[in-house]
Amino acid sequence: MAIERHEQNKVFSKVVEANGFVFTSGITANDNSLDVLGQTKQTLDEIDRLLALCGTDKSKVISSMIWVTDIRHRDAMNEAWFEWTGGQNMPVRACVEAALADPKLLVEIQVTAAK
Amino acid sequence: MAIERHEQNKVFSKVVEANGFVFTSGITANDNSLDVLGQTKQTLDEIDRLLALCGTDKSKVISSMIWVTDIRHRDAMNEAWFEWTGGQNMPVRACVEAALADPKLLVEIQVTAAK
Amino acid sequence: MAIERHEQNKVFSKVVEANGFVFTSGITANDNSLDVLGQTKQTLDEIDRLLALCGTDKSKVISSMIWVTDIRHRDAMNEAWFEWTGGQNMPVRACVEAALADPKLLVEIQVTAAK
Repeated sequence: MAIERHEQNKVFSKVVEANGFVFTSGITANDNSLDVLGQTKQTLDEIDRLLALCGTDKSKVISSMIWVTDIRHRDAMNEAWFEWTGGQNMPVRACVEAALADPKLLVEIQVTAAK
Repeated sequence: MAIERHEQNKVFSKVVEANGFVFTSGITANDNSLDVLGQTKQTLDEIDRLLALCGTDKSKVISSMIWVTDIRHRDAMNEAWFEWTGGQNMPVRACVEAALADPKLLVEIQVTAAK
Repeated sequence: MAIERHEQNKVFSKVVEANGFVFTSGITANDNSLDVLGQTKQTLDEIDRLLALCGTDKSKVISSMIWVTDIRHRDAMNEAWFEWTGGQNMPVRACVEAALADPKLLVEIQVTAAK
């Protein structure tokens, strides 16, 4: 099985392709001064960019994992989620609370897509 | 790669098929008044139903992810897990503590299966 | 799809192969008296062993999930991570905080690899 790795740094690759599947790292906002809605939008924009890099897009996302640092932020996060998905081609999803790498980060999202 | 999505709502699909793999969402009990044993049983029943919808079953589960809201509930959750798996065709598993969408939910389980 | 399960116990298989992918369970250190650096090294050694069991190795890891019981332990965990990966063939990664099965466990790691 061929593996294609994109945007590797010292810690991870941002996105990896293998056998028709596209896996992203857990993605967070670049600007952690934003509120949870803003951070989620920025995170999903970055996921769009990573999927495009692999020749796929959000219509082919299979599964998603969302961590929020405060589960009460789920509604605000969902606002951006609803806008992003548009209610179509919904992946499976799990969303749980967890502390993230930087205390200012409020949301982290990882997706697996098909090509 | 063809993607087949089942029981989509505004937030997620309950189960998605792609390339011979079947992915469920993080599943929780319908009746959150149950104790952790009861919630786990109800969750695993729902997973059985979702796998059947895709023409597969628990004997073909590859991996599992379990979140419990209190890690001390692991033993009670495992009681239902042992009964469900019967000690056969064991998937890989990770089980960690996390706060879930509703404070009354005590356990959430996500599985990936083969068809 | 053929599924090959290795080192099954009552709770899980330590590693499962399906369709060219290799999935490990969430792996933890055998010696939970070690500090986070020591536990991470021991965990990654065990992952090496499990991957070898399936005829693959760390150069083919696609994705990784890391849980630390205290997110401030991330730097110490990363020391072992940097040594293990050597900055090459980086998988995608997510790393969040979560309480683990035993309060003495400080880190748990799960990987998916290609064969």
